[in-house]
Amino acid sequence: MTRGFYIGRFQPYHNGHHSVVETISEEVDELVLGIGSAGDSHTRHDPFTAGERIMMITKSLVDSDLVTYAVPIEDLDRNSVWVSHVQSMSPEFDVAYSNNPLVIQLFKEAGVEVRQSPMFNRDVLEGTEVRDRMVEGGDWEKLVPEPVTEVIEESGGIERIQRVSQTDSNGV
Amino acid sequence: MTRGFYIGRFQPYHNGHHSVVETISEEVDELVLGIGSAGDSHTRHDPFTAGERIMMITKSLVDSDLVTYAVPIEDLDRNSVWVSHVQSMSPEFDVAYSNNPLVIQLFKEAGVEVRQSPMFNRDVLEGTEVRDRMVEGGDWEKLVPEPVTEVIEESGGIERIQRVSQTDSNGV
Amino acid sequence: MTRGFYIGRFQPYHNGHHSVVETISEEVDELVLGIGSAGDSHTRHDPFTAGERIMMITKSLVDSDLVTYAVPIEDLDRNSVWVSHVQSMSPEFDVAYSNNPLVIQLFKEAGVEVRQSPMFNRDVLEGTEVRDRMVEGGDWEKLVPEPVTEVIEESGGIERIQRVSQTDSNGV
Amino acid sequence: MTRGFYIGRFQPYHNGHHSVVETISEEVDELVLGIGSAGDSHTRHDPFTAGERIMMITKSLVDSDLVTYAVPIEDLDRNSVWVSHVQSMSPEFDVAYSNNPLVIQLFKEAGVEVRQSPMFNRDVLEGTEVRDRMVEGGDWEKLVPEPVTEVIEESGGIERIQRVSQTDSNGV
Amino acid sequence: MTRGFYIGRFQPYHNGHHSVVETISEEVDELVLGIGSAGDSHTRHDPFTAGERIMMITKSLVDSDLVTYAVPIEDLDRNSVWVSHVQSMSPEFDVAYSNNPLVIQLFKEAGVEVRQSPMFNRDVLEGTEVRDRMVEGGDWEKLVPEPVTEVIEESGGIERIQRVSQTDSNGV
Amino acid sequence: MTRGFYIGRFQPYHNGHHSVVETISEEVDELVLGIGSAGDSHTRHDPFTAGERIMMITKSLVDSDLVTYAVPIEDLDRNSVWVSHVQSMSPEFDVAYSNNPLVIQLFKEAGVEVRQSPMFNRDVLEGTEVRDRMVEGGDWEKLVPEPVTEVIEESGGIERIQRVSQTDSNGV
Repeated sequence: MTRGFYIGRFQPYHNGHHSVVETISEEVDELVLGIGSAGDSHTRHDPFTAGERIMMITKSLVDSDLVTYAVPIEDLDRNSVWVSHVQSMSPEFDVAYSNNPLVIQLFKEAGVEVRQSPMFNRDVLEGTEVRDRMVEGGDWEKLVPEPVTEVIEESGGIERIQRVSQTDSNGV
Repeated sequence: MTRGFYIGRFQPYHNGHHSVVETISEEVDELVLGIGSAGDSHTRHDPFTAGERIMMITKSLVDSDLVTYAVPIEDLDRNSVWVSHVQSMSPEFDVAYSNNPLVIQLFKEAGVEVRQSPMFNRDVLEGTEVRDRMVEGGDWEKLVPEPVTEVIEESGGIERIQRVSQTDSNGV
Repeated sequence: MTRGFYIGRFQPYHNGHHSVVETISEEVDELVLGIGSAGDSHTRHDPFTAGERIMMITKSLVDSDLVTYAVPIEDLDRNSVWVSHVQSMSPEFDVAYSNNPLVIQLFKEAGVEVRQSPMFNRDVLEGTEVRDRMVEGGDWEKLVPEPVTEVIEESGGIERIQRVSQTDSNGV
Repeated sequence: MTRGFYIGRFQPYHNGHHSVVETISEEVDELVLGIGSAGDSHTRHDPFTAGERIMMITKSLVDSDLVTYAVPIEDLDRNSVWVSHVQSMSPEFDVAYSNNPLVIQLFKEAGVEVRQSPMFNRDVLEGTEVRDRMVEGGDWEKLVPEPVTEVIEESGGIERIQRVSQTDSNGV
Repeated sequence: MTRGFYIGRFQPYHNGHHSVVETISEEVDELVLGIGSAGDSHTRHDPFTAGERIMMITKSLVDSDLVTYAVPIEDLDRNSVWVSHVQSMSPEFDVAYSNNPLVIQLFKEAGVEVRQSPMFNRDVLEGTEVRDRMVEGGDWEKLVPEPVTEVIEESGGIERIQRVSQTDSNGV
Repeated sequence: MTRGFYIGRFQPYHNGHHSVVETISEEVDELVLGIGSAGDSHTRHDPFTAGERIMMITKSLVDSDLVTYAVPIEDLDRNSVWVSHVQSMSPEFDVAYSNNPLVIQLFKEAGVEVRQSPMFNRDVLEGTEVRDRMVEGGDWEKLVPEPVTEVIEESGGIERIQRVSQTDSNGV
């Protein structure tokens, strides 16, 4: 049995994430999706709460054969203890998937295997694109799995990101 | 569709919790199990990490018809913002289940419906009993669902709780 | 112009505090009432929020000739920086009033004048007595200034302290 | 009886804030001035301590018929619990006044009435202007109520903001 | 080259600690003394600041042939990340010395070698005894290395612990 | 006996810092080197842990006649309590050395003597230059004392800063 770990902010969970999960699913039996910056919400960069992101992920993967866990990870703002923090919050995992250089470095120093893939870069690019379209009234729905659309609509997510994007800082 | 919320420390998830979940399952379609004090571990009162507790819950409920979410909730140490914190970390819920007077008071002040039941008291009593047996080498296995036994054995949980119970405080 | 500083938890503001303020008012032109443990609430030991305590103090002193400031002071859990924290949150003051040995020691090490009085001990004793009566349904109203009764009744404070007193710990 | 809530950083309290308070005073009986980022000080963006800002506000409003409360609000860095935090620190209020999109969104999601006005934008613009003049030795005094000038001079505020403005970051 | 790590609160550094260091010095070339609960001070249980404890240790070991490092370690209140925290704050070490069951368990789970010795228990017992004598006016000086006496006298440590011991809690 | 205090991030400890220490050594008997932002690591701006920086400083000053203390200082993110925080973590000192305007202001408001020197500016400039060369593969070794080179090589510091510099933010 192999369990993988895939960290992201999932703001929101989109097709780029979804392809990554499908790719990883060929290599592992179970996958933990670590929801980073779980405490952040209500900003243009991080519009959705951890609870909303759990819903997006769970609903999008409900028909998948892969056993998945959506686990919120709050920021500790200490790179040197980040791996221990993740390991205590997550079901035990054998391999981490990431293209983020900092994440790779931290896992490597802790002796955790990390696998990279060029396609992982899609998730960062698409996240910004999705949020830009949400703010500007563009067609964001086709960039995310269908259940994500429902979660966002139920939470009034579009009105939220449009309004908070008018603020020039990330906090109150 | 009705979604319930059931908070506990689940140290560990035991038969008392399991009965509560079964009872609640007759009233809701989905249930969030909020794992309280998620950051605490390695003490007699809180021996297991959030990740280990997620595993216990998920594995114990894998065959249940109920849709469940196991969500770690870190302590904020502020009763006045606790409900908002829980609501941001959890999928949206319609009703909370608890017999804890403080939890009941906080949810009521926030306008959230709370349902109580005499049987909920079992979980607190049984949690202490399970941990006592673990420390003293008694028969704890029969008090927990079978998958919980596996999680605890794989994590070396018995050796851990036995050793840390010799410490006279809860921290390093 | 002399400004004094008087720290307390004011859970709730009662006649003992009120006498202390009257006594101090003969020595100073203005008085800051520092509301300690401002973030704590909803426990038997600290039932009321900082906002409720501000109301109790302000309404009780509305007819006083003394210029007063009610200032919430959140805990930093660091004795060594406590004086600096208080000084940054409070209007500048010339003398502190306290019978608490720790508070006296911290102010003295920081070079702040501290004045003590046997009568200051009343406030601690009376705080416990007031809360005990609230929990047990006794006659607490005569131990507090009249406006405090209103604040507590409007906030549902009696039901709150009675319920949370059934919990065996101070947090969720 | 209607009580309003008006949040700002008040770095410093200036004529723009003062006009807003005057306008609001026609709609409410009492007004809470929430002093945001209360823990920040000694930077160009946030030069004054919470205690100094309490003094500015209280002294400027001493002759007003409006009952006012100046309440420091420390940052929690969690948008999702910000409203609960504010509500626990402040006397209970019926309506919030703000033009800040994030503040508006958070209060609306929490079901709190928010009133906006074009004139509220003055406060942000004027705050920057006042601080710029302080740093560059310009005529800032005419942009603030007279008592504010005294508070700043007594605290050595001009020397402070001029010196810390030479630092390229916001912290030590 | 072998470097050891020895954690303690050192409230104060006493003869029991000193004997432990001497014993360890036969096994290692360098030794890190981790000063635990570095942020705590001004209580009966933790009377001295981290800075004062650094002085006690450094002055007591000035003539030792052992290369030593006195490193304050602030509490993170998360057992699961404690080892990572210690490792980031301390010069790299090969072996940890402790009789504390929790410390032993945490290091073992992290794969760090731990060495125990019956004599290590002296340090806990003696710490309480030294503080009791300080509070009660007994002969504490003979229980600590001579330089520790000087540090405590210069800081007014006896008056401090005697006064704060009259307080019934550990914080302001 | 005079003890000085010199604060820096020491990322890494380089020849600029070393000259400053030599200059200060003519004025004091002992010197505390406060390692600022002790909790930060694994970023381009702050690549090294506090433990690694303690090693750099201690090894570089091992042959100096000056008695030195390398003391990690974690950020509290509160300018108003920073001096108290530093004073509690550090051996007591008589004079602080700094050219940082914020540090100067904070110490002055607290009544601590501060000494400045044009040469102190070297340390900031050289820190950036050293890190730039590390990232770009340039000749950084000649900008630091020899023992620093060893510490960095043993910790894999060059690979670390090169990798994390590809990340566009400072945290996970």
